[in-house]
Amino acid sequence: MSATPGSLFLIPTVLAPGTAEKVLSPQVRETITQIDYFFAENIRTARRFISELKTGKTIESLTFYELSKETPEAETAEQIKLILTGKDMGVLSEAGCPGVADPGAVAVKLAHKSGIRVVPLVGPSSILLALMGAGFSGQSFVFHGYLPIDRADRSRTIKYLEKEAQQRNQTQIFMETPYRNNQLLEEILKTCQSQTPLCIASQLTAPDELIQTKLVQDWRRQPPDLHKKPTVFLLYK
Amino acid sequence: MSATPGSLFLIPTVLAPGTAEKVLSPQVRETITQIDYFFAENIRTARRFISELKTGKTIESLTFYELSKETPEAETAEQIKLILTGKDMGVLSEAGCPGVADPGAVAVKLAHKSGIRVVPLVGPSSILLALMGAGFSGQSFVFHGYLPIDRADRSRTIKYLEKEAQQRNQTQIFMETPYRNNQLLEEILKTCQSQTPLCIASQLTAPDELIQTKLVQDWRRQPPDLHKKPTVFLLYK
Repeated sequence: MSATPGSLFLIPTVLAPGTAEKVLSPQVRETITQIDYFFAENIRTARRFISELKTGKTIESLTFYELSKETPEAETAEQIKLILTGKDMGVLSEAGCPGVADPGAVAVKLAHKSGIRVVPLVGPSSILLALMGAGFSGQSFVFHGYLPIDRADRSRTIKYLEKEAQQRNQTQIFMETPYRNNQLLEEILKTCQSQTPLCIASQLTAPDELIQTKLVQDWRRQPPDLHKKPTVFLLYK
Repeated sequence: MSATPGSLFLIPTVLAPGTAEKVLSPQVRETITQIDYFFAENIRTARRFISELKTGKTIESLTFYELSKETPEAETAEQIKLILTGKDMGVLSEAGCPGVADPGAVAVKLAHKSGIRVVPLVGPSSILLALMGAGFSGQSFVFHGYLPIDRADRSRTIKYLEKEAQQRNQTQIFMETPYRNNQLLEEILKTCQSQTPLCIASQLTAPDELIQTKLVQDWRRQPPDLHKKPTVFLLYK
Protein backbone atom coordinates (compact mmCIF):
# COMPACT_ATOMS: atom_id res chain seq x y z
CA MET A 1 0.00 0.00 0.00
CA SER A 2 1.44 3.37 -0.97
CA ALA A 3 1.35 6.37 1.37
CA THR A 4 -0.69 9.51 0.75
CA PRO A 5 1.79 11.95 -0.83
CA GLY A 6 2.87 15.03 1.11
CA SER A 7 3.00 18.60 -0.17
CA LEU A 8 5.71 21.05 -1.19
CA PHE A 9 5.40 24.24 0.86
CA LEU A 10 7.00 27.44 -0.46
CA ILE A 11 8.07 29.22 2.70
CA PRO A 12 8.99 32.92 2.73
CA THR A 13 11.73 34.17 5.01
CA VAL A 14 12.48 37.69 6.27
CA LEU A 15 14.05 40.44 4.15
CA ALA A 16 15.71 42.19 7.07
CA PRO A 17 17.11 40.69 10.30
CA GLY A 18 14.92 40.73 13.37
CA THR A 19 11.64 41.31 11.54
CA ALA A 20 10.06 37.83 11.71
CA GLU A 21 7.57 38.81 14.43
CA LYS A 22 6.35 41.67 12.31
CA VAL A 23 6.24 40.38 8.73
CA LEU A 24 5.73 36.62 8.72
CA SER A 25 2.18 35.32 8.39
CA PRO A 26 1.13 32.84 11.12
CA GLN A 27 1.00 30.05 8.53
CA VAL A 28 4.77 30.33 8.03
CA ARG A 29 5.66 29.50 11.62
CA GLU A 30 2.98 26.82 11.80
CA THR A 31 4.14 25.12 8.61
CA ILE A 32 7.80 25.18 9.58
CA THR A 33 6.90 23.56 12.89
CA GLN A 34 5.27 20.66 11.04
CA ILE A 35 8.00 19.98 8.46
CA ASP A 36 11.26 18.07 8.83
CA TYR A 37 12.71 18.27 5.29
CA PHE A 38 13.76 21.47 3.60
CA PHE A 39 15.28 22.65 0.35
CA ALA A 40 17.35 25.77 0.99
CA GLU A 41 19.35 28.08 -1.23
CA ASN A 42 21.88 28.39 1.59
CA ILE A 43 21.68 25.83 4.36
CA ARG A 44 23.43 27.96 6.97
CA THR A 45 21.04 30.88 6.50
CA ALA A 46 18.08 28.50 6.55
CA ARG A 47 19.17 26.86 9.81
CA ARG A 48 19.65 30.25 11.44
CA PHE A 49 16.27 31.50 10.22
CA ILE A 50 14.40 28.47 11.58
CA SER A 51 16.41 28.47 14.77
CA GLU A 52 15.48 32.12 15.44
CA LEU A 53 11.79 31.32 15.05
CA LYS A 54 12.04 29.23 18.24
CA THR A 55 9.52 26.63 17.09
CA GLY A 56 10.53 24.30 19.89
CA LYS A 57 12.08 21.78 17.51
CA THR A 58 15.81 21.09 17.53
CA ILE A 59 17.59 22.04 14.33
CA GLU A 60 19.46 18.71 14.49
CA SER A 61 16.19 16.86 13.87
CA LEU A 62 15.72 18.61 10.52
CA THR A 63 17.17 17.64 7.15
CA PHE A 64 18.32 20.28 4.68
CA TYR A 65 19.05 19.79 0.98
CA GLU A 66 20.93 22.52 -0.85
CA LEU A 67 19.04 23.94 -3.82
CA SER A 68 21.22 26.65 -5.32
CA LYS A 69 21.95 27.72 -8.88
CA GLU A 70 24.70 25.08 -8.92
CA THR A 71 22.56 22.14 -7.77
CA PRO A 72 22.08 19.56 -10.56
CA GLU A 73 18.37 19.17 -11.33
CA ALA A 74 18.68 15.38 -11.13
CA GLU A 75 19.73 15.69 -7.48
CA THR A 76 16.64 17.76 -6.59
CA ALA A 77 14.47 15.35 -8.60
CA GLU A 78 15.77 12.47 -6.47
CA GLN A 79 15.29 14.30 -3.16
CA ILE A 80 11.76 15.45 -3.91
CA LYS A 81 10.63 11.81 -4.21
CA LEU A 82 10.46 11.87 -0.41
CA ILE A 83 7.14 13.69 -0.82
CA LEU A 84 5.70 10.71 -2.69
CA THR A 85 6.44 8.56 0.37
CA GLY A 86 4.22 10.80 2.47
CA LYS A 87 6.59 13.46 3.83
CA ASP A 88 5.97 17.20 3.51
CA MET A 89 8.87 19.32 2.28
CA GLY A 90 9.55 23.05 2.39
CA VAL A 91 11.48 25.38 0.09
CA LEU A 92 13.31 28.29 1.72
CA SER A 93 14.75 31.21 -0.17
CA GLU A 94 17.82 33.19 0.86
CA ALA A 95 15.50 36.15 1.53
CA GLY A 96 11.83 36.69 0.80
CA CYS A 97 9.63 34.41 -1.28
CA PRO A 98 11.02 31.20 -2.84
CA GLY A 99 10.37 30.61 -6.53
CA VAL A 100 10.59 34.31 -7.36
CA ALA A 101 13.98 35.21 -8.78
CA ASP A 102 15.61 32.25 -6.98
CA PRO A 103 16.47 28.58 -7.68
CA GLY A 104 13.48 27.29 -5.66
CA ALA A 105 11.44 27.34 -8.88
CA VAL A 106 13.20 24.13 -9.95
CA ALA A 107 11.69 22.18 -7.03
CA VAL A 108 8.27 23.61 -7.85
CA LYS A 109 8.59 22.60 -11.50
CA LEU A 110 9.58 19.06 -10.51
CA ALA A 111 6.69 18.86 -8.03
CA HIS A 112 4.15 19.71 -10.73
CA LYS A 113 5.66 17.04 -12.99
CA SER A 114 4.99 14.42 -10.30
CA GLY A 115 1.52 15.74 -9.51
CA ILE A 116 2.66 16.89 -6.07
CA ARG A 117 0.56 19.59 -4.40
CA VAL A 118 2.38 22.92 -4.18
CA VAL A 119 1.42 25.39 -1.43
CA PRO A 120 2.86 28.93 -1.55
CA LEU A 121 2.72 30.72 1.83
CA VAL A 122 2.22 34.43 2.36
CA GLY A 123 5.31 36.44 3.22
CA PRO A 124 7.52 39.39 2.33
CA SER A 125 8.63 40.00 -1.25
CA SER A 126 10.81 43.01 -1.97
CA ILE A 127 9.46 43.21 -5.52
CA LEU A 128 5.83 43.28 -4.40
CA LEU A 129 6.43 45.72 -1.51
CA ALA A 130 8.34 48.02 -3.85
CA LEU A 131 5.52 47.87 -6.38
CA MET A 132 2.90 48.67 -3.72
CA GLY A 133 4.99 51.54 -2.40
CA ALA A 134 5.87 53.14 -5.73
CA GLY A 135 2.42 54.46 -6.64
CA PHE A 136 2.97 53.48 -10.26
CA SER A 137 0.77 51.34 -12.50
CA GLY A 138 0.08 48.01 -10.86
CA GLN A 139 -2.22 47.17 -13.79
CA SER A 140 0.77 46.25 -15.86
CA PHE A 141 4.31 45.71 -14.64
CA VAL A 142 7.39 43.77 -15.54
CA PHE A 143 10.26 42.49 -13.44
CA HIS A 144 13.59 42.16 -15.25
CA GLY A 145 15.82 40.77 -12.49
CA TYR A 146 19.39 42.01 -12.69
CA LEU A 147 20.51 44.36 -15.46
CA PRO A 148 23.63 43.57 -17.54
CA ILE A 149 26.93 44.31 -15.79
CA ASP A 150 28.71 45.69 -18.85
CA ARG A 151 28.40 49.46 -18.71
CA ALA A 152 27.40 50.09 -22.31
CA ASP A 153 24.90 47.21 -22.26
CA ARG A 154 23.45 48.44 -19.01
CA SER A 155 23.04 51.97 -20.24
CA ARG A 156 21.29 50.71 -23.38
CA THR A 157 18.99 48.54 -21.25
CA ILE A 158 18.03 51.45 -18.99
CA LYS A 159 17.21 53.55 -22.05
CA TYR A 160 15.12 50.68 -23.38
CA LEU A 161 13.23 50.22 -20.09
CA GLU A 162 12.44 53.92 -19.96
CA LYS A 163 10.98 53.68 -23.46
CA GLU A 164 9.02 50.55 -22.58
CA ALA A 165 7.52 52.30 -19.52
CA GLN A 166 6.36 55.17 -21.72
CA GLN A 167 5.12 53.18 -24.69
CA ARG A 168 3.49 50.29 -22.83
CA ASN A 169 2.31 52.33 -19.84
CA GLN A 170 4.04 49.65 -17.79
CA THR A 171 6.05 49.80 -14.55
CA GLN A 172 9.61 48.52 -15.09
CA ILE A 173 11.17 46.82 -12.06
CA PHE A 174 14.80 45.75 -11.70
CA MET A 175 17.60 45.34 -9.18
CA GLU A 176 21.35 45.08 -8.74
CA THR A 177 23.81 43.32 -6.46
CA PRO A 178 23.76 45.64 -3.40
CA TYR A 179 27.44 46.64 -3.62
CA ARG A 180 26.87 47.95 -7.15
CA ASN A 181 23.71 49.94 -6.34
CA ASN A 182 25.34 53.37 -6.35
CA GLN A 183 26.83 52.77 -9.79
CA LEU A 184 23.48 51.66 -11.14
CA LEU A 185 21.74 54.70 -9.65
CA GLU A 186 24.36 56.99 -11.17
CA GLU A 187 23.79 55.32 -14.53
CA ILE A 188 20.00 55.72 -14.27
CA LEU A 189 20.28 59.40 -13.35
CA LYS A 190 22.65 60.00 -16.25
CA THR A 191 20.70 58.00 -18.81
CA CYS A 192 17.04 58.78 -18.11
CA GLN A 193 15.09 61.89 -18.98
CA SER A 194 14.64 64.57 -16.31
CA GLN A 195 10.87 64.07 -16.18
CA THR A 196 10.93 60.27 -15.77
CA PRO A 197 9.62 59.13 -12.37
CA LEU A 198 11.97 56.77 -10.52
CA CYS A 199 11.07 54.90 -7.34
CA ILE A 200 13.86 53.74 -5.07
CA ALA A 201 12.76 51.08 -2.57
CA SER A 202 15.62 50.18 -0.26
CA GLN A 203 16.06 48.18 2.96
CA LEU A 204 12.44 47.08 2.77
CA THR A 205 10.81 46.17 6.12
CA ALA A 206 13.99 47.30 7.97
CA PRO A 207 14.00 50.24 10.40
CA ASP A 208 15.84 52.37 7.81
CA GLU A 209 13.45 51.47 4.97
CA LEU A 210 13.45 54.06 2.18
CA ILE A 211 10.66 54.16 -0.40
CA GLN A 212 10.48 57.29 -2.47
CA THR A 213 9.22 58.20 -5.89
CA LYS A 214 10.66 61.35 -7.45
CA LEU A 215 11.43 62.67 -10.92
CA VAL A 216 14.92 61.86 -12.15
CA GLN A 217 15.79 65.57 -12.03
CA ASP A 218 14.94 65.67 -8.31
CA TRP A 219 16.93 62.53 -7.49
CA ARG A 220 19.91 64.11 -9.30
CA ARG A 221 20.02 66.90 -6.74
CA GLN A 222 20.21 64.52 -3.80
CA PRO A 223 21.04 60.92 -4.68
CA PRO A 224 20.76 58.58 -1.66
CA ASP A 225 23.64 56.31 -0.65
CA LEU A 226 22.49 52.79 -1.50
CA HIS A 227 25.83 51.01 -1.06
CA LYS A 228 25.30 47.45 0.17
CA LYS A 229 21.61 48.14 0.87
CA PRO A 230 19.26 45.71 -0.92
CA THR A 231 17.28 47.94 -3.28
CA VAL A 232 14.56 47.65 -5.90
CA PHE A 233 14.42 50.24 -8.69
CA LEU A 234 11.21 51.09 -10.54
CA LEU A 235 10.73 53.28 -13.60
CA TYR A 236 7.42 54.59 -14.92
CA LYS A 237 6.20 57.44 -17.04
CA MET B 1 3.88 75.06 15.10
CA SER B 2 3.09 72.36 12.58
CA ALA B 3 2.52 68.73 13.57
CA THR B 4 4.85 65.88 12.62
CA PRO B 5 3.25 64.36 9.51
CA GLY B 6 1.79 60.85 9.71
CA SER B 7 2.35 58.01 7.28
CA LEU B 8 0.34 56.29 4.58
CA PHE B 9 0.12 52.56 5.32
CA LEU B 10 -0.69 50.16 2.48
CA ILE B 11 -2.68 47.44 4.18
CA PRO B 12 -3.29 44.05 2.57
CA THR B 13 -6.57 42.24 3.14
CA VAL B 14 -7.47 38.56 2.72
CA LEU B 15 -8.01 36.87 -0.67
CA ALA B 16 -10.46 34.30 0.67
CA PRO B 17 -13.00 34.65 3.51
CA GLY B 18 -12.04 33.37 6.94
CA THR B 19 -8.28 33.26 6.27
CA ALA B 20 -7.11 36.32 8.22
CA GLU B 21 -5.66 34.28 11.10
CA LYS B 22 -3.58 32.29 8.64
CA VAL B 23 -2.32 34.77 6.04
CA LEU B 24 -2.09 38.24 7.57
CA SER B 25 1.26 39.33 8.98
CA PRO B 26 1.13 40.58 12.59
CA GLN B 27 1.97 44.11 11.40
CA VAL B 28 -1.36 44.27 9.55
CA ARG B 29 -3.49 43.82 12.65
CA GLU B 30 -1.24 46.08 14.70
CA THR B 31 -1.33 48.88 12.14
CA ILE B 32 -5.10 48.71 11.69
CA THR B 33 -5.51 48.97 15.45
CA GLN B 34 -3.54 52.23 15.45
CA ILE B 35 -5.23 53.96 12.51
CA ASP B 36 -8.54 55.84 12.39
CA TYR B 37 -8.65 57.00 8.75
CA PHE B 38 -8.83 54.70 5.75
CA PHE B 39 -9.04 54.87 1.98
CA ALA B 40 -10.99 51.87 0.71
CA GLU B 41 -11.93 50.67 -2.74
CA ASN B 42 -15.24 49.51 -1.30
CA ILE B 43 -16.19 50.90 2.09
CA ARG B 44 -18.62 48.10 2.98
CA THR B 45 -16.01 45.40 2.36
CA ALA B 46 -13.41 47.39 4.30
CA ARG B 47 -15.67 47.81 7.32
CA ARG B 48 -16.48 44.11 7.34
CA PHE B 49 -12.80 43.17 7.04
CA ILE B 50 -11.73 45.37 9.94
CA SER B 51 -14.72 44.34 12.01
CA GLU B 52 -13.84 40.65 11.61
CA LEU B 53 -10.31 41.30 12.84
CA LYS B 54 -11.80 42.11 16.25
CA THR B 55 -9.22 44.77 17.08
CA GLY B 56 -11.29 46.00 19.99
CA LYS B 57 -12.10 49.31 18.28
CA THR B 58 -15.63 50.19 17.25
CA ILE B 59 -16.10 50.55 13.52
CA GLU B 60 -18.14 53.73 14.17
CA SER B 61 -15.00 55.47 15.46
CA LEU B 62 -13.27 55.02 12.09
CA THR B 63 -13.52 57.23 9.02
CA PHE B 64 -13.54 55.73 5.52
CA TYR B 65 -12.98 57.55 2.25
CA GLU B 66 -13.92 55.79 -0.96
CA LEU B 67 -11.02 55.41 -3.39
CA SER B 68 -12.36 53.57 -6.43
CA LYS B 69 -11.73 53.91 -10.16
CA GLU B 70 -14.48 56.55 -10.20
CA THR B 71 -13.07 58.73 -7.39
CA PRO B 72 -11.81 62.10 -8.71
CA GLU B 73 -8.09 62.49 -7.94
CA ALA B 74 -8.72 65.98 -6.53
CA GLU B 75 -10.95 64.45 -3.85
CA THR B 76 -8.23 62.00 -2.74
CA ALA B 77 -5.67 64.83 -2.85
CA GLU B 78 -7.82 66.82 -0.44
CA GLN B 79 -8.40 63.90 1.95
CA ILE B 80 -4.75 62.86 2.11
CA LYS B 81 -3.84 66.28 3.55
CA LEU B 82 -5.01 64.86 6.88
CA ILE B 83 -1.64 63.09 7.03
CA LEU B 84 0.16 66.44 6.99
CA THR B 85 -1.75 67.40 10.13
CA GLY B 86 -0.24 64.40 11.93
CA LYS B 87 -2.76 61.61 11.32
CA ASP B 88 -1.82 58.20 9.93
CA MET B 89 -3.94 56.86 7.09
CA GLY B 90 -4.37 53.38 5.62
CA VAL B 91 -5.21 52.18 2.11
CA LEU B 92 -7.28 49.00 1.84
CA SER B 93 -7.79 47.07 -1.34
CA GLU B 94 -10.90 45.06 -2.23
CA ALA B 95 -8.74 41.90 -1.89
CA GLY B 96 -5.02 41.41 -1.44
CA CYS B 97 -2.40 44.14 -1.67
CA PRO B 98 -3.36 47.77 -2.34
CA GLY B 99 -1.52 49.60 -5.10
CA VAL B 100 -1.16 46.48 -7.23
CA ALA B 101 -3.81 46.37 -9.94
CA ASP B 102 -6.15 48.58 -7.90
CA PRO B 103 -6.95 52.30 -7.49
CA GLY B 104 -4.94 52.59 -4.25
CA ALA B 105 -1.90 53.56 -6.34
CA VAL B 106 -3.40 57.06 -6.74
CA ALA B 107 -3.15 57.71 -2.98
CA VAL B 108 0.45 56.46 -3.01
CA LYS B 109 1.36 58.73 -5.92
CA LEU B 110 -0.17 61.73 -4.13
CA ALA B 111 1.65 60.83 -0.91
CA HIS B 112 5.04 60.85 -2.66
CA LYS B 113 4.22 64.26 -4.19
CA SER B 114 3.73 65.68 -0.69
CA GLY B 115 6.80 63.93 0.72
CA ILE B 116 4.61 61.70 2.90
CA ARG B 117 6.17 58.45 4.13
CA VAL B 118 4.63 55.40 2.47
CA VAL B 119 4.73 52.04 4.31
CA PRO B 120 3.66 48.88 2.43
CA LEU B 121 2.73 46.01 4.76
CA VAL B 122 3.28 42.33 4.06
CA GLY B 123 0.23 40.32 3.00
CA PRO B 124 -1.34 38.06 0.43
CA SER B 125 -1.09 38.86 -3.28
CA SER B 126 -2.66 36.46 -5.74
CA ILE B 127 -0.16 37.47 -8.42
CA LEU B 128 2.83 36.74 -6.22
CA LEU B 129 1.45 33.48 -4.78
CA ALA B 130 0.63 32.30 -8.30
CA LEU B 131 4.13 33.15 -9.47
CA MET B 132 5.70 31.28 -6.54
CA GLY B 133 3.50 28.27 -7.15
CA ALA B 134 3.93 28.05 -10.92
CA GLY B 135 7.56 26.91 -10.97
CA PHE B 136 8.24 29.18 -13.96
CA SER B 137 10.93 31.81 -14.36
CA GLY B 138 10.79 34.28 -11.51
CA GLN B 139 13.90 35.96 -12.93
CA SER B 140 11.77 37.76 -15.45
CA PHE B 141 8.01 38.05 -15.42
CA VAL B 142 5.31 40.39 -16.59
CA PHE B 143 1.80 41.02 -15.30
CA HIS B 144 -0.71 42.21 -17.91
CA GLY B 145 -3.84 42.64 -15.80
CA TYR B 146 -7.04 41.82 -17.67
CA LEU B 147 -6.96 40.69 -21.30
CA PRO B 148 -9.19 42.39 -23.90
CA ILE B 149 -12.85 41.30 -23.80
CA ASP B 150 -13.36 41.22 -27.58
CA ARG B 151 -12.87 37.65 -28.71
CA ALA B 152 -10.63 38.28 -31.71
CA ASP B 153 -8.51 40.78 -29.75
CA ARG B 154 -8.20 38.37 -26.87
CA SER B 155 -7.15 35.50 -29.06
CA ARG B 156 -4.49 37.68 -30.72
CA THR B 157 -3.26 38.79 -27.29
CA ILE B 158 -2.95 35.20 -26.03
CA LYS B 159 -0.96 34.29 -29.15
CA TYR B 160 1.27 37.29 -28.54
CA LEU B 161 1.86 36.41 -24.88
CA GLU B 162 2.80 32.86 -25.81
CA LYS B 163 5.37 34.25 -28.24
CA GLU B 164 6.68 36.72 -25.68
CA ALA B 165 7.14 33.89 -23.15
CA GLN B 166 9.19 31.94 -25.67
CA GLN B 167 11.25 34.77 -27.10
CA ARG B 168 11.93 36.67 -23.88
CA ASN B 169 12.11 33.64 -21.60
CA GLN B 170 9.60 35.52 -19.48
CA THR B 171 6.61 34.34 -17.42
CA GLN B 172 3.39 35.96 -18.68
CA ILE B 173 0.75 36.56 -15.99
CA PHE B 174 -2.84 37.67 -16.56
CA MET B 175 -6.35 37.32 -15.18
CA GLU B 176 -10.03 37.68 -16.03
CA THR B 177 -13.24 38.64 -14.29
CA PRO B 178 -14.11 35.40 -12.45
CA TYR B 179 -17.41 34.78 -14.28
CA ARG B 180 -15.58 34.80 -17.62
CA ASN B 181 -12.76 32.44 -16.51
CA ASN B 182 -14.06 29.36 -18.33
CA GLN B 183 -14.29 31.24 -21.62
CA LEU B 184 -10.75 32.55 -21.20
CA LEU B 185 -9.44 29.07 -20.41
CA GLU B 186 -11.21 27.66 -23.48
CA GLU B 187 -9.63 30.39 -25.58
CA ILE B 188 -6.15 29.67 -24.17
CA LEU B 189 -6.47 25.93 -24.80
CA LYS B 190 -7.64 26.56 -28.36
CA THR B 191 -5.05 29.22 -29.16
CA CYS B 192 -1.83 27.98 -27.56
CA GLN B 193 0.50 25.26 -28.75
CA SER B 194 0.17 21.78 -27.24
CA GLN B 195 3.61 21.97 -25.64
CA THR B 196 3.17 25.34 -23.93
CA PRO B 197 3.12 25.10 -20.12
CA LEU B 198 0.14 26.81 -18.50
CA CYS B 199 -0.26 27.33 -14.77
CA ILE B 200 -3.74 27.79 -13.35
CA ALA B 201 -3.76 29.30 -9.85
CA SER B 202 -7.29 29.49 -8.52
CA GLN B 203 -8.96 30.22 -5.16
CA LEU B 204 -5.58 31.08 -3.67
CA THR B 205 -5.28 30.62 0.13
CA ALA B 206 -8.83 29.13 0.22
CA PRO B 207 -9.48 25.50 1.26
CA ASP B 208 -10.17 24.58 -2.39
CA GLU B 209 -7.01 26.27 -3.70
CA LEU B 210 -5.87 24.86 -7.05
CA ILE B 211 -2.33 25.50 -8.33
CA GLN B 212 -1.24 23.33 -11.20
CA THR B 213 1.19 23.62 -14.05
CA LYS B 214 0.60 21.36 -17.04
CA LEU B 215 1.17 21.42 -20.76
CA VAL B 216 -1.72 22.85 -22.76
CA GLN B 217 -2.32 19.41 -24.31
CA ASP B 218 -2.82 17.92 -20.82
CA TRP B 219 -5.17 20.68 -19.69
CA ARG B 220 -7.23 20.07 -22.85
CA ARG B 221 -8.06 16.55 -21.68
CA GLN B 222 -9.40 17.73 -18.33
CA PRO B 223 -10.10 21.47 -18.10
CA PRO B 224 -11.07 22.52 -14.55
CA ASP B 225 -14.26 24.46 -13.86
CA LEU B 226 -13.12 27.97 -12.92
CA HIS B 227 -16.51 29.68 -13.07
CA LYS B 228 -16.70 32.54 -10.55
CA LYS B 229 -13.43 31.39 -8.91
CA PRO B 230 -10.76 34.15 -8.75
CA THR B 231 -7.93 32.78 -10.90
CA VAL B 232 -4.49 33.80 -12.12
CA PHE B 233 -3.22 32.38 -15.42
CA LEU B 234 0.49 32.03 -16.22
CA LEU B 235 2.16 31.07 -19.49
CA TYR B 236 5.78 30.10 -19.93
CA LYS B 237 7.88 28.13 -22.38
